[in-house]
Amino acid sequence: MITGGNYIGNRISKEGTNTFKTFDPKLNIPTPWTFHEATKEEVNEACSLAEEAFVSYSSSTGPEKAKFLRQIAIEIEALGDTLITTYMQESGLPEGRAKGERGRTLGQLNAFANLLEEGSWVEATIDTAQPDRQPMPKVDLRKILVPIGPIAVFGSSNFPLAFSTAGGDSASALAAGCPVVVKSHPMHAGTGELVASAISKAIEKTGMPIGVFSNLNSSDIAVGEQLVMNPSMKGVGFTGSIKGGTAIYKLVNNRKEPIPVFAEMGSVNPVVVLPNALAEKGADWATKYAGSILLGAGQFCTNPGLILGIKSDALNRFISTLGTEITKTEPICMLHPKIHENFEQGKNELTGQPEVATVAEYTQEAAPNFAQQKVLTVRGADFLKNTKLHQEVFGPFSIVVHCQDAEELENILKNLDGQLTGTILGTDDELTKFKTVVDSLQSRVGRIIFNGVPTGVEVCPSMQHGGPFPATTDSRFTSVGTTSIKRWVRPVSYQSWPEHLLPKELQNNNPLNISRLVNGTYTVNKI
Amino acid sequence: MITGGNYIGNRISKEGTNTFKTFDPKLNIPTPWTFHEATKEEVNEACSLAEEAFVSYSSSTGPEKAKFLRQIAIEIEALGDTLITTYMQESGLPEGRAKGERGRTLGQLNAFANLLEEGSWVEATIDTAQPDRQPMPKVDLRKILVPIGPIAVFGSSNFPLAFSTAGGDSASALAAGCPVVVKSHPMHAGTGELVASAISKAIEKTGMPIGVFSNLNSSDIAVGEQLVMNPSMKGVGFTGSIKGGTAIYKLVNNRKEPIPVFAEMGSVNPVVVLPNALAEKGADWATKYAGSILLGAGQFCTNPGLILGIKSDALNRFISTLGTEITKTEPICMLHPKIHENFEQGKNELTGQPEVATVAEYTQEAAPNFAQQKVLTVRGADFLKNTKLHQEVFGPFSIVVHCQDAEELENILKNLDGQLTGTILGTDDELTKFKTVVDSLQSRVGRIIFNGVPTGVEVCPSMQHGGPFPATTDSRFTSVGTTSIKRWVRPVSYQSWPEHLLPKELQNNNPLNISRLVNGTYTVNKI
Repeated sequence: MITGGNYIGNRISKEGTNTFKTFDPKLNIPTPWTFHEATKEEVNEACSLAEEAFVSYSSSTGPEKAKFLRQIAIEIEALGDTLITTYMQESGLPEGRAKGERGRTLGQLNAFANLLEEGSWVEATIDTAQPDRQPMPKVDLRKILVPIGPIAVFGSSNFPLAFSTAGGDSASALAAGCPVVVKSHPMHAGTGELVASAISKAIEKTGMPIGVFSNLNSSDIAVGEQLVMNPSMKGVGFTGSIKGGTAIYKLVNNRKEPIPVFAEMGSVNPVVVLPNALAEKGADWATKYAGSILLGAGQFCTNPGLILGIKSDALNRFISTLGTEITKTEPICMLHPKIHENFEQGKNELTGQPEVATVAEYTQEAAPNFAQQKVLTVRGADFLKNTKLHQEVFGPFSIVVHCQDAEELENILKNLDGQLTGTILGTDDELTKFKTVVDSLQSRVGRIIFNGVPTGVEVCPSMQHGGPFPATTDSRFTSVGTTSIKRWVRPVSYQSWPEHLLPKELQNNNPLNISRLVNGTYTVNKI
Repeated sequence: MITGGNYIGNRISKEGTNTFKTFDPKLNIPTPWTFHEATKEEVNEACSLAEEAFVSYSSSTGPEKAKFLRQIAIEIEALGDTLITTYMQESGLPEGRAKGERGRTLGQLNAFANLLEEGSWVEATIDTAQPDRQPMPKVDLRKILVPIGPIAVFGSSNFPLAFSTAGGDSASALAAGCPVVVKSHPMHAGTGELVASAISKAIEKTGMPIGVFSNLNSSDIAVGEQLVMNPSMKGVGFTGSIKGGTAIYKLVNNRKEPIPVFAEMGSVNPVVVLPNALAEKGADWATKYAGSILLGAGQFCTNPGLILGIKSDALNRFISTLGTEITKTEPICMLHPKIHENFEQGKNELTGQPEVATVAEYTQEAAPNFAQQKVLTVRGADFLKNTKLHQEVFGPFSIVVHCQDAEELENILKNLDGQLTGTILGTDDELTKFKTVVDSLQSRVGRIIFNGVPTGVEVCPSMQHGGPFPATTDSRFTSVGTTSIKRWVRPVSYQSWPEHLLPKELQNNNPLNISRLVNGTYTVNKI
């Protein structure tokens, strides 16, 4: 079923002579398939098809798009075990994770379908005419969100399903009414092609225009560069490293026409452990955090890479338990030799800083590509001075910072970059007692958690997965949850438009029965 | 009352030795005041004060901010005739316009105050916990919009009140909870200082932090450059030319931390006159459009600079009437000699294109800085080829394009840049008959108008003032209407947060009685 070709619309295309292979990190050998890099012509064709498809796809109704998204979910599920085994082969991730992530991917597609069927997401806003208003009559104005155009989506390394081919970025863009051209992640091009084949079937079965989706293979940066610079592309969705995201962002800034780039680039997700949390439940939290740090070999954007506490015996005991717990677990296979290599490099660079001490480390031999987890510790003053220690190490790794006092802790928070999440462990009283600490953390994060772990990102309307730079390039949007659709739409106002020719969402009798803002009041009532 | 100084917080500051004067275009002489350019130190101080003020101002309640905005309106009104005469002196605009624009400015401030008092704009979104959910418990998540930080606002030349010091950008940012540093427009620095003094009084009377507003004088680009590059600034609002907006956008792209730039850069606002409109009401429309082109000496972002029709005798009659009507009116004073000079230059450049013919022109002598209006005409094929003819001429000027047929008309629309507005004149039937023409226009504009004129921008929730590039740098937002507040906010999610410590908007009993999305349903009910 895996051909190694690109999907240019519904056509499998292998025009290029450059090829690459994916890799089985558990067996430490290449997978059997050979993938063809997309050529410049294939990239351009995919973009032209997307632009063409936009004309009709952008005017699809909510239920039509919902049917399409649900069919994608059905076709992905129909790939059955082939998808699961390919996912596992190309990522080294276990079956439970593969199935869980597939469930999340289908869940996301269906959540957007629900959103489209319900229909209120378009923010229909109506101000009716007042012909007799003085000194000037007021015209009838009605506003609705419309799609912005074809979107370039970059598959992420760490979510071969939920943030790749038919993942959150693609699902939200398709839901918005935007065609999608995916730059498949080279580490799981086979998984990507399988999902692309499912989307292709769904397009055929629901009669969508063929250019609404294409999937491009590439192990290099050229294809992604051509894609985001193509004038047909009107937006970019990316999940990955700060280096990769910044490069794309900078490149797009050279376009004549600016387009929105939503790059989610990860963070260290600071966790503040307040004194009562340590006193009352220190050992519990240490065990939970060992689990959170090790989850998925630490290959999550929300992995807790930085734990901050005020020096005390209780903090020492917490650190000691964390160290014991973290080394109890066997090493876990990472996604790819390159990811493992970067992990080792980052871990060693931070370990090599003169101010740090090792709390615990898995030192026994590990199979190739398996991560030997590690926890370091450092004094607050030293952490403040050495900004190398602020950087993310992607993998099962964390630094615990001993702060002199609450003031130093707050000062550290004020000097941190923007983050996806921040966590406070403590009692209710402590949220008030340490209010300025809490406020400093909140001003730097997209999601703030009380007495929990940052890993585990719920897909729901109230989720904010995004945060101040460099966590993302635009903190005003989220990449997880149904609100992520707002990245790909713009408002259009209709002035004095004949009522029967307005989009249904804006007609007087509210035929879709959606919630609207009518003359300043939120209502489902007819006008 | 006009000191010529900068407002650095509440302090009038004249540290710089570089000075400039504003100009009375009607009398063609400088005004009596001398303004001090802000120094680098003054710019930095204003930004630091804004950052400091953000800490407390960002946590002001809706009613507190509403009181502040209403007080600004009261203080502006209290400036009385001084403001009106200064406005007229510095802009050459008539008293009616001055008072109208003041009314609009106060109206905007009060509209945002209403929005804040009502409170639902924060998009409170709540998903309650499901501890028993399988396979994983669901956590409690609650999301709300929070301000992003201090905003740099550039005063616009053509709206000395409504889009300058306390205009739409400032009002929306302050409403969002963001301090504002204004780069005052050098053509009306006196008007700007008067309004700044009103804001300063409102800050004092409502006990707001002093750094919440500063006003910087500058006749040069350096101050604006320093302002947008200052790391304390977290967003930019701009209304002006494509050249100016693009320069700021490009500059901001060099910042380490990307920040949103919302630049509204105008457009030619294409108007499509369909055959039945010409047949039934050609002379009426010609008269109305002569008025729209001349309104405010054509110095509006929504001025109709391009009229497209299909060749016919009726179109010829329309053009002839438009020509007669447009030359009936005496020339009108423009804002400034520079604006007049640019108008003359643009008009002459387009008149000099070999393909165009003059329909009508005011040829009698005019006083200095008074605009001699002009209308040109050109064949569709020639317009398509010569993109110089697509550019905006800021002033009382328009081009009428004779298209061969509907196909050529549609082709021209497809080759136009993004626009703030597009207008269709026709009958209901024609909207269906010329559906692809209408769709092509809609895909390029922020607001589409049926049987009206694009000038006159209503300030209300359903207004979209913004459009695809180069009309603006981000078509996903509007700069007019209460929704413009969304430019300056980002979502934050609270996970498992103690209920009594949540922002009021997110508490179970909905104490502010706002509309919220609770477990997928829009409701004002308590939980």
